[in-house]
Amino acid sequence: MAESLREVTLLPAGAIMRIRENELVQRISGSVAQRRIPGQLRLGAGDDTALFEPRPGYELVLTCDWFLEGTHFLRDRHPADSVGWKCLARAVSDVAAMGGIPRCFLLSLALPLSLAGRWLEEFLTGLRRASRRFRCALAGGDTTRSRQILINVTVAGEVKSGRAVLRSGAHSGDVVYVSGRLGEAELGLQTLKRNKRGARPMGLRLKKHLYPEARIALGQWLAEKHVASSMMDLSDGLSTDLPRLCAVSGVGARIDAASIPAPLISSRSGLGTIDSLQLALHGGDDYELLFTVRPNRAKSLPRSFQGVALTPIGVITSKKQIFLVDASDRARQLEPGCWDPFELR
Amino acid sequence: MAESLREVTLLPAGAIMRIRENELVQRISGSVAQRRIPGQLRLGAGDDTALFEPRPGYELVLTCDWFLEGTHFLRDRHPADSVGWKCLARAVSDVAAMGGIPRCFLLSLALPLSLAGRWLEEFLTGLRRASRRFRCALAGGDTTRSRQILINVTVAGEVKSGRAVLRSGAHSGDVVYVSGRLGEAELGLQTLKRNKRGARPMGLRLKKHLYPEARIALGQWLAEKHVASSMMDLSDGLSTDLPRLCAVSGVGARIDAASIPAPLISSRSGLGTIDSLQLALHGGDDYELLFTVRPNRAKSLPRSFQGVALTPIGVITSKKQIFLVDASDRARQLEPGCWDPFELR
Repeated sequence: MAESLREVTLLPAGAIMRIRENELVQRISGSVAQRRIPGQLRLGAGDDTALFEPRPGYELVLTCDWFLEGTHFLRDRHPADSVGWKCLARAVSDVAAMGGIPRCFLLSLALPLSLAGRWLEEFLTGLRRASRRFRCALAGGDTTRSRQILINVTVAGEVKSGRAVLRSGAHSGDVVYVSGRLGEAELGLQTLKRNKRGARPMGLRLKKHLYPEARIALGQWLAEKHVASSMMDLSDGLSTDLPRLCAVSGVGARIDAASIPAPLISSRSGLGTIDSLQLALHGGDDYELLFTVRPNRAKSLPRSFQGVALTPIGVITSKKQIFLVDASDRARQLEPGCWDPFELR
Repeated sequence: MAESLREVTLLPAGAIMRIRENELVQRISGSVAQRRIPGQLRLGAGDDTALFEPRPGYELVLTCDWFLEGTHFLRDRHPADSVGWKCLARAVSDVAAMGGIPRCFLLSLALPLSLAGRWLEEFLTGLRRASRRFRCALAGGDTTRSRQILINVTVAGEVKSGRAVLRSGAHSGDVVYVSGRLGEAELGLQTLKRNKRGARPMGLRLKKHLYPEARIALGQWLAEKHVASSMMDLSDGLSTDLPRLCAVSGVGARIDAASIPAPLISSRSGLGTIDSLQLALHGGDDYELLFTVRPNRAKSLPRSFQGVALTPIGVITSKKQIFLVDASDRARQLEPGCWDPFELR
């Protein structure tokens, strides 16, 4: 762990205590370190680097993700434990989207001094929960101070050699699938924005926005059983991410609007004016998997995997455009949606 | 590569052009990608993650480092190509300090829109030069926008299994060594601060501050030949970093002030008031190696390695304190220095 935070102000029980960065590093690793870490991880936080040995026959999967105050979350709207959970879940989701198994992560954290007390404690609680949930151990990182909360998470994982599912494998005729239900995280965000500022948000609807899952087991199954021909995770919304997958594969797609698993919005929710399909098309932060399956293989694909729905929503075409087909069989070109994390500001 | 920057404003030849993040990602990878990347790196920027396979018999070395505007560099004082070079050199130095060989890196970059033109070009020029110099290929990353320049670099490298040199291996009686000359980067920073604001800084004196080397070959040699019993890189200054190494090893040290290789300051430099020893003790950003050698082995250690001086500066003690001994054999306790990157502000 590279140290760069010299001192940080802690505010336990109102007292001001200055601690050295060494202690902050120990506090983070003491809080998040798991009792049982994978055998391959030889060294935790505290030295210059982490050491990690993928098993023979496995490749290393490596990804990093920004999670920035004002861009990806708001300090006064998002509970600190959600920030801790989500910064890891987002990065782990990238590993899941390759068919990989997360193993360890590096946390880069920059904080204002005033947040090194209760906010940091709650953040670490959420991070610890996510670390256990995703079986991904803290292996190091870097800390410094800053005016805003800056987070960057690197996740290292493993995938059986040659089994990683890339974005580039989709072929004309493949069936396009999504896992779970799309747009629910965006619905949670809408709810959060309508909440009274500073109020602790509540309710199941928010769970997918605040504490998203990563589809690790599903991704691994799709990869190891050679089910998926291409795959990515849905972080920026279907209308933004599907064109990315199609562009890399050199293909297009026809998506059936009625097939897209959109949020179920009850008339009593007070959110009746929100268009469920728009949420599913353009809402970000779902971290569901988008994948394609050869037509022969699709016939025998189960409708769900470990309780997560697997829904066919369209087909890959050789024509390099993406069309959305409505119930009357009218096709219109699907444009990348207007969802923007910066709306948060 | 996880995409989160939706659009960025480019200003080529005065025209405002909005590009999608996909294009920014391509621009970065097109600019920094090397023609020959290591055989083990199967996938570059553009998918959800990078894939990397350490050679059999090697462990993976993993590190990350912040490089933040206002904390680690100033936009109006530090040339953009220095920012590009240094953000990678710092992280690579952590790999060198384990005895590892850097292989690939992930770049997390957050920028104000107004810097996506010329500043970014120069930044990428420096990054590309460092990437070639350190033989460390761009493998992915994440981009977004922000008010200030935020950089985080993750480096993955390899080290022969069981040969990594930890901070924790120092024993009483071991000789304490440093590579190169300490305090020169701090001297460069002092020069930069005295420069006219906005002026393009010049001169060899600045090189070590703006374009530091990472002691990769030396670190590898010290590790593979079992020369060093403990090692770390000097990023925050000897008086801060030596106590860290001693703390983890459960030892102390006696350092001979006269032995420390301090900067040579000529009376004509206009920097005559600066205390050379203070620079060497407390100056940060040198990225030289601090290591310990068993007394028997120290007798036959050469004075330099590939032109880099290897200087014995003291001895490890069982007493867990760190003393600085002056020319009159008077010992005083060495306190962590007052060098602070935040002085930059």
